[in-house]
Formats: sequence, structure tokens, C-alpha cells
Amino acid sequence: MLLPHIKQPGDLKSLSVEELASLAEEIRSFLIEKLSVTGGHLASNLGVVELTIALHYCYNSPKDKMIYDVGHQAYVHKILTGRMDRFDTLRQRDGLCGFVKRSESEHDVWEAGHSSTSLSAAMGMALARDLKGEDNKVIAMIGDGALTGGMAFEALNHIGHERKNLMVILNDNEMSIAPNVGAMHNYLSKIRSDRHYLRAKDELEVLLKKIPAIGGKLAKSAGRVKDSLKYMMVPGVLFEELGLTYLGPVDGHDLPKLIETFQQADNVTGPVLVHVVTTKGKGYKPAEADSHKWHGISPYKIESGQVLKAVGNPMYTEIFGRTLIELAEQDERIVAVTPAMPGGSGLVPFSKEFPSRMIDVGIAEQHAATMCAALAMEGLKPVFAVYSTFMQRAYDQIVHDICRHNANVMFAIDRAGFVGADGETHHGVFDVAFLRHIPNLVLMMPKDENELRHMMKTALDYEDGPIAYRYPRVNVVGVPLDKELQAISIGSWELLRKGEGFAVIASGPMLQVATEAAEAMKREGLQVGVVNARFLKPLDEDMLRELARQHTKLIVLEEASEAGSLGSAVLEFYAKAEIQEAQVRLMGIPDLFVEHGSIKEQRAEVGLTIEDVCLKLRKWAAEPAYGMGQSV
Amino acid sequence: MLLPHIKQPGDLKSLSVEELASLAEEIRSFLIEKLSVTGGHLASNLGVVELTIALHYCYNSPKDKMIYDVGHQAYVHKILTGRMDRFDTLRQRDGLCGFVKRSESEHDVWEAGHSSTSLSAAMGMALARDLKGEDNKVIAMIGDGALTGGMAFEALNHIGHERKNLMVILNDNEMSIAPNVGAMHNYLSKIRSDRHYLRAKDELEVLLKKIPAIGGKLAKSAGRVKDSLKYMMVPGVLFEELGLTYLGPVDGHDLPKLIETFQQADNVTGPVLVHVVTTKGKGYKPAEADSHKWHGISPYKIESGQVLKAVGNPMYTEIFGRTLIELAEQDERIVAVTPAMPGGSGLVPFSKEFPSRMIDVGIAEQHAATMCAALAMEGLKPVFAVYSTFMQRAYDQIVHDICRHNANVMFAIDRAGFVGADGETHHGVFDVAFLRHIPNLVLMMPKDENELRHMMKTALDYEDGPIAYRYPRVNVVGVPLDKELQAISIGSWELLRKGEGFAVIASGPMLQVATEAAEAMKREGLQVGVVNARFLKPLDEDMLRELARQHTKLIVLEEASEAGSLGSAVLEFYAKAEIQEAQVRLMGIPDLFVEHGSIKEQRAEVGLTIEDVCLKLRKWAAEPAYGMGQSV
Repeated sequence: MLLPHIKQPGDLKSLSVEELASLAEEIRSFLIEKLSVTGGHLASNLGVVELTIALHYCYNSPKDKMIYDVGHQAYVHKILTGRMDRFDTLRQRDGLCGFVKRSESEHDVWEAGHSSTSLSAAMGMALARDLKGEDNKVIAMIGDGALTGGMAFEALNHIGHERKNLMVILNDNEMSIAPNVGAMHNYLSKIRSDRHYLRAKDELEVLLKKIPAIGGKLAKSAGRVKDSLKYMMVPGVLFEELGLTYLGPVDGHDLPKLIETFQQADNVTGPVLVHVVTTKGKGYKPAEADSHKWHGISPYKIESGQVLKAVGNPMYTEIFGRTLIELAEQDERIVAVTPAMPGGSGLVPFSKEFPSRMIDVGIAEQHAATMCAALAMEGLKPVFAVYSTFMQRAYDQIVHDICRHNANVMFAIDRAGFVGADGETHHGVFDVAFLRHIPNLVLMMPKDENELRHMMKTALDYEDGPIAYRYPRVNVVGVPLDKELQAISIGSWELLRKGEGFAVIASGPMLQVATEAAEAMKREGLQVGVVNARFLKPLDEDMLRELARQHTKLIVLEEASEAGSLGSAVLEFYAKAEIQEAQVRLMGIPDLFVEHGSIKEQRAEVGLTIEDVCLKLRKWAAEPAYGMGQSV
Repeated sequence: MLLPHIKQPGDLKSLSVEELASLAEEIRSFLIEKLSVTGGHLASNLGVVELTIALHYCYNSPKDKMIYDVGHQAYVHKILTGRMDRFDTLRQRDGLCGFVKRSESEHDVWEAGHSSTSLSAAMGMALARDLKGEDNKVIAMIGDGALTGGMAFEALNHIGHERKNLMVILNDNEMSIAPNVGAMHNYLSKIRSDRHYLRAKDELEVLLKKIPAIGGKLAKSAGRVKDSLKYMMVPGVLFEELGLTYLGPVDGHDLPKLIETFQQADNVTGPVLVHVVTTKGKGYKPAEADSHKWHGISPYKIESGQVLKAVGNPMYTEIFGRTLIELAEQDERIVAVTPAMPGGSGLVPFSKEFPSRMIDVGIAEQHAATMCAALAMEGLKPVFAVYSTFMQRAYDQIVHDICRHNANVMFAIDRAGFVGADGETHHGVFDVAFLRHIPNLVLMMPKDENELRHMMKTALDYEDGPIAYRYPRVNVVGVPLDKELQAISIGSWELLRKGEGFAVIASGPMLQVATEAAEAMKREGLQVGVVNARFLKPLDEDMLRELARQHTKLIVLEEASEAGSLGSAVLEFYAKAEIQEAQVRLMGIPDLFVEHGSIKEQRAEVGLTIEDVCLKLRKWAAEPAYGMGQSV
């Protein structure tokens, strides 16, 4: 066994290439075994075992900067940089992070959970290096999927122009999370598969050698043609045209070839792109056979590859996907748009039912949003299905192209609230705050799956502009589903429980917390009302007026940033309506990024549990009545 | 004169090509004359006169969709679609909009003030057309500058993959607003200037014709080579590789060539890109000579090209640019980053002083932001100089890459608040709301140019994470400038004027409004305090506590969206601190998009004038004392 002796990347340097290959196999076994217990991103990490080894063998981390685009493919890097013994705690609270994490190791130089950032990071590090007169290498690893994200192209455009020394490793596994779409993908496939390119180049050499013999004017032409061709016949002409030297394609599981290619790359002045072809799930048959399923995986049985699924209700995502099919059967204006997440967004059944009405644009949230505006302006009803955290990428397009045009776009915002093990880069806790101030937008959140279905109908029937519904990454409540879907009156809230003197205003899963807290307080003699704020915008102003009239003390409870979200909206309403009697307190997510762990732990960390609500109510009930001169 | 007879695009169809050319000259004269009075985007519109005529001659608007990327180059389109007689009111309140405007004409099908949206819009319209079984053309016009924006690439990637019928016109004038940077620009220049490409292609044809005579195995190779070459020797190989048919380059001022090329394009199945080379400012010498200056121009004398400048204090932009040089002389860690706006951001003098520390990334806000994070992590102090409205494009990168990393990035946010004639796509009214909820960020706004300078020093000295200062698109106050710059204590506000019972909390230009209102109210016997909320985050909690202790009635006055901005922050603070005595009312921008006009008119429209503040104070002072049972 070699693996136990690798405590830091320098330990690789003394190994032979054969030993490196053995090490690769040991790492594969290690990953397959560990992840069978913890779950995690197996397929992508099995794909980069040799690549990561070769990099650490050829370069000197942390002096040389290794930047992983979306840090979930950094498990091998973590193993090689002294974190092998922490894999039992992977993605758990206070355990090893599933992504690159600067606080874990000096070898982790760039964190990312959103894709396509690595080239910009590399450019910044290369610029800083040169300004400081240092001489380290800068290496960015980016997948073929991530390369389609617009910001990666923005960076390529800058890199090719400035011509700083840096290396881009294009990890081409023909997949992002779902199979890739897009012209760039087609282009890369052509390079990989069509040997025509390379053959033509070889044959051309032979041909051109014959030509000088022709003599005269033609020979001169031939010379010029030859110059052009030499440049143009390399397979990566697209990258070459953008100013990068292209090397590859190289087999990403062939260690000697990888090492040789990196040595070649070191001799290039200016930016170089190394095109490495890898197989997702390499070395573990079930993962190789279905790398999509094995992208992020729950615990599984190693021998059979059988996934050990927790029993429980379906996720909201699934209800969304099913209901969209129902609606689309009745209304042919519906089209679904996803930025490379058909599976994660529950749209695979829809795509089978309505292939021509399913539009997967690749990792391209900005384009997706703006395209939705145009689809809506032409009379269709597009649903932009997107995770809350990735929706951040389309903020400007939502403001400028959708809401300013007041286009009838529907948003299905998945993963709203905490997301658990993926941690701080993936929480959907800002969307209420970044959407609420945009004119024309309606924003909803359902208390359960039945209400989600009615909200989807509400959105479809609404013809006055953009409308969104957000739902969490949790199992549904398990309520019966109404067969007939009916639009909910825009801006109407629901009094779920009558109280006396106190009420909790909440939405989504926080309503269960509020209801259980109210139940507990009832046992202590306090009657606490519960209000379903199913519209986060517009608010139910009548109900808010009525609550103030009754001098009800209000807690706004939300799994969203305390700054700018629903609590803030309620306060603004009372201030604008000049209702001074209102008494409002806030329970939301304070001003910090919350690390990985379970959703339960994350809620506890920020004080969003039943007991937290009870404490707040108890304390408030014990205070002297308002106006008695509270200390300020 | 032909122009007076053109009431709608159909009127062009009966003209001869010679008449179209005369019409082009008439339109040029018209634009030069009209804009000499109103100001506006002259250079870009002079550049597209023939192009716009040719499009309306060859296609049928509005059935065929013409999509302008950044609608400021649509003046000729407006002239040809019946809006000639409204040019005296250009960019004025209730007058002709300086951008494409759907409410103005059925020929205006897509509005945009931010760049790079046209390809996504075109893709949406083409998809909708095909789903609905219609047969109109979809034509997107995009500049070479806008093409570097990431979302344009996302759209290209999708367009090249889906292969819907649509036409992209690349209007290549070698400029966005500033001279273009980037590898794409270099690539286009090569196509334009290096006849080598085309010559090689012609000569190759001759060469290849000779080869079959060689016979045997070589001939077969030659055939294969020829196939490859035929495909690869077109100048737009980069676009061809992405799945679009490339036509061009074509002279954008040659009407017969343009018309011929469009006819060629109509025979192509799938997406086609027509590369049109135009000259910005064409036909007006001063504008041709300095198209940068003449991009957006104030009124001018036609004969001399002399610009009639309003006399007044310099803009905040200029003070920023000058001060940055002072600071950079003392601190070599400072680097300036701009997304294609060195001129607009006041950075031209800096770029001359410190060329290696000036980084223009092209239209690429996302890349700029993420690169800044990396620069900061390597110990530099990057200043991301960006207009508030364009900063929207980088929202995700600010959250995920800058603030989550807690990187020491400085933001210089220009054009904060209303911007006047550019109107609703350009206002900087959302940044407080979209930045305030992001953990780790400090956000400031100065009351005058002297304070701006101290804030820039504050930002430079601050080493605990990202920090931003925002300033408006107005002339500075005209106060004396302190020679020595000193850091301001983070989160400290300033009591500018003591009051009794009332205070207005404001920042930036709203402080002048507040002060003058307080002055007016003093004459009516009301002593109104004025607080300079120079930190929008964090707040001065001590001062807020003190104000509540004194039972001061507070108005938060801000030129920012009422939802989620400073007023909201003040309300949240009191709610979280459980200070029930606080009495806060809001004066900000309500939930709507505000159209073009002067800044003064825009403030009046939403109620942010001195008189509005006085009215609010008068009314509040006349109300029965708090607790007397206001109606709710």
C-alpha cells in the first residue's frame, strides 16, 4: 500500500510512474469504499484520479496554484494533501467539506460551488503574480460543461488577449451533471472522435512536401497556404483563434501521457489549454454505466451499486415535475427551460413527454432568463426551472429583461432555504431579498405540496407579468392532493391558526415550525396565531392591517436572509402605511454564510427551531406591556 | 428629398438602390442636425445608416423581428418606422426614448440598455416561432463589443447547437464604447485586416485543382484535405465551429453588397452570422475622428464639432479618478479593473499613469468581479469600478466569489441613483437592496466629494473584507478638499444638523434635499435634524438607539428602491433590537421602473424633492401624538 505514506504532495515525487499508477488504483478503492458510507460526488472524482496525481507530481502546490472549477471534484486533491483520514466525516457538520475549502488546507486556494469561475480566478492569480514579480505556475481545471458558462468565455477572451502564462486544463468528460448540450460540446466531440482532423493534417504534410517541385508562382502560393494551414489544422483551432496554445486531446487516464503533456505545456509561452479526455466514474462499473446518477450519490452497496435510499415522502422537485406535465397537457403554451439541470429539477419525465417543449441551454442561467423573456413576449408561457443559488447568476437578466419588460415568465425556484451537505455555496437563502425589490414580480412559497400545485396553476393563469414560486430541498409534507387545480388570489395570505395577542407569520417549511411552536405554547397557556404568508410579494395588506388593529404581536419567521426578506417587507409595509401600533420581531438568517451539515443543524445554528420560536414568544409574553418604557 | 416620404418601412421597397443611398445621406444630415440640439448617441447611429436601411429594405418589420442589442443604435430604425418628427424630444421626459421602446412602436420588439442580450432574445423568438408553426425571420444585431459579454456566448452556444433559422448581424466597428479589448476582438481584426485568409483561400482553389492530376493514393488524401479545407478556410472558422454559417466580412456602408449578402443569408438553412464592418461616426468628420468621444454626446456646433458643455463643478467620477491616482502613488497594491468603461469611470488618467495596473476586461462584469477576488486573495487591492446598473450582472460573483471568500475587494459604484436621460435600463437604484443582504460587505455613500476621498482611503485601509462606495451621476457639491486623507470609522454616521423631535436620515445627494427641507421647516418653527448615513451597512447602531431614546420621529430619505434599502435596514435594526419606541417612515423609490427624463424630473415623479420632504414632515407634525389611537 502506497496511499498511507502520502502525507503531502511532495511524497509523490519519489514514486515511479508505475507506482503512481498503483496509487491511482488505491485511491479509487478508497473513494469507492468511503463514499459508500458517506455519499458524495463519486463519479467526477473517479474521473480525475490520474489527472490530479499527475498535476501534483509535476507541480509544487501550494506555491503553484491549483484552481478547481466547482470544487466537488477535489476529493483526490484532498487525499493527496493530507486529508485522507477525514473522509469519514465528508459533508457533515464540522467534517470535511465536499468542496475546496481554504480553511482546511493551504493547498486549497480557491473555493467554488458555482461553475465556471476557475478561469477568472486563474487570470487574477496570474496577473497578481506578474505584478508582484513572482514565478509560480497557475493552473485552472475546468470541465467541458462549465466551459459553456458565459463567465468562462469572458475569462478566455481576456486570457487570450493578455497572454499571461497560465494553464487551463479542460477536463472533458462529455458531461456536466446532465449530458452536455451546446455547440461547444459538439465541437469538442468532433475533436475527440473525428480523427479526420489529425489524419488530414498528416496527409497534408505529405502533400505539401510534393508541391514545391511544381515551382514558380504556384510554389509561392503553396507556401502561403502552408503557413495558414499549419496554424489552422490543429484540432483546437477555436482556442488557438482566441489566443491560447492548444495541446491534446490526451487520455486522462494515461499517466505517462499526462506527464509528458504537462512538460510540453511548460515550454509554451503564454496561456496554454490542455484538453484532457476523462471518463466519469472510471474504474467503478455502476458509476461508469450511469455517471449522471452517480454524480452526487447517497450511500450505496459497493458490490451491487445499489443505492441505499432513505424511505420517505417524495421531494418537492418531483411534485413540481409531475404537476408541470399535467398543466402542459392542458396548455400547449408551456415550455420548460433548464440550465443543465433537467434531472435535478425534476424535468426528465416532462422532457420525455414533451421533447420539443423542453429546452436545456447548458450551464447558462443568463441566457436562459433572457430567452424566457423573449419566449413570453411571443405568447408562450416559459417556466424557468432553476435552483435558488444558481438563479443569482441571472439577477440582471431578471431585472432588465424579464421584469422591466413585464414578461409573463414563470419561475420554479428549487432548493429555496438551506440545502444541507452542499453547504454555503448552495443555500437558497438570498432569493427573497434579491427578488423582492424588483418591480412587477410576484413571489410565492407554498406551505405544502398541494399548495405548490395550486400555485403552479396560479402562475399559469396569471397574465400580468413575471411570477415565481419557490420550494425547499426537503420531502413534502404528505398531504392529500386536490385533483382540481385552482388559482389562488394574488397577494392573499391564509390564517392557519387563530391566536390571541401573538402570531407567527411564516411560509414554506417554517410554517411547520411555527405550528408546532404554537402547539407547545398553547400548553403553556399562550394562544399563538399562525399565518401562511404564501405570497412574499405582494403582501396581504388587509391581513396585516387587521393584525395591527388587534394589537397582535408578530414574529416573522423565515429561512431566508433576515436582511431584505419577508420580515423586512412587513416592516416596510407598516412604515409606509404609517401604522405605528404594529409590533414586529424578526427571526431569519443573520448576516453570515452557513457551513455544510444537515438542514436541521443549519436551522439550529441560526435559531430557526421550534424551541427558538417558543423562547422568543415566552420572553416577549413576559415583557412589560408596550408603552411602559422599555429600555432602549 | 426622400426622407419626408418614408412613413413606414414598406415605403423603402419601391426605391432604387441609388435612391436608398441618397436616403442614407439625408438620414445622416438629419441625425447630425437633430442631435446637435438634443445630444444623444450620434456615432453609433451614423455607423448603421446603410445597414438599417438594407434590413428594412430586405425584410418585413414587424412580422420579421429586428432585435437591437443595446437599443441606442436604433435611431435610424426609429426614423424609418415613422418617428422622425419626434426627434426634437429625444431622451426627454415624455419624449422619444433614446433606446428601443415597445410602447413607442410595433416595430420595437425588444428593449435593452444592457449589452449582449440580443442573441438570447433572438433564440427565444426563433424557438417560439417554430413551436407556433410561424415563418417570420428573426434578426439580431450585435456589436463586436457586446459579443464579448458572457451571455452572448451562452446564446451562441445554444444557437449553434439547436440550429434554428435565425440571422445574427455582427456589427463590427472595432469599438464598444471604449476601444475593444479581448481575444475575440483580436480575432475579428485579423479577419478584417488580414487578406491573407481570403487570398489563401483563392490560391488554394487553384492549387487543389492541379492536384487530382497527381493521381493514386495522394489524390485520395488530397480529396480529404480539400474537404477539410473548404470548411476550414472560411474566415469565420470560430463561428463555423460553433455551428453558425459565416458570411462576410462585408462593407457596412455599401448598400448593394449588404443587400446581396442578406439575399445569400436567406438561402442558408440554420443560423447564419453576417459579419458587417462599419465605421462609427461615418459621414461626420469630428465623430469619425474620435468615435469614443462622440458615442454619447452633448449638444454641439455642427460645423466645428465643438461640444457645448454646461459649466459646472466636475462630476464625482472625475474626483474618483483623480483620487485613485493619489492613493495608487502611495500604495502599489492598488489595481483598477473596468468592464470596458475606462472613460465613463474616470480611469483614463489612471491608465496613463499606471498602465500595468489598469485592467480593462471588456464587457465582462462577471469575470471582472471574480478576477478581483483572486487579485485580492493574492494580496493586491483591486478597485472594481463599475456603474451601479451594470454591477447587476456580477451579483452572483459578488456573493459567491468576493463576499463568501471575504476578499479585500474595493468597489467604486458609479451612477448610483437616477441617471436621467438614459432612463429605466440605466438607473442605479437597486444596488443598496441587492448588496445589503450579502454577508461581509461594507457599503458607503459620501455626502460630498471631500467625503468620497476619505471613503476611498477608508476602503484602502480596510483589510477585513469587501468594501464599496457608491456615488451619483451628478456634479459634486463644490466643497474644499482636505489634503490629508483619513479613514472614517466603519459604521459611523454623522449628525449634520441637530433637531427636536424630527430627523431625516439620508445619504449622498439626498442630504442636500434633507438639509434644505430642514431649513424650510425651521422657518415654520420645526427643528428637523439631519443625519448623514454615510454607511449603508453596517448602520450606526449607537446613533439609532440614541434617536429612539429621544423619541425622535425619523424619515429615511433615499434615492434607492424603498424595498430592501436603507429604510428597510433601519426598520430591521429596531425590530431586531426590539426597540418598539422607534418611529420610522420611508421616502424612497416605489415599486416601479422610472422612465427617461432629467434627474430632477425623475426625483419629482417619485416624491423625492425638498417640497415632498416638507409635506411629509408637516403632516407628521400635525398628527395627534403617538399612542392616541391612530386609525390603522
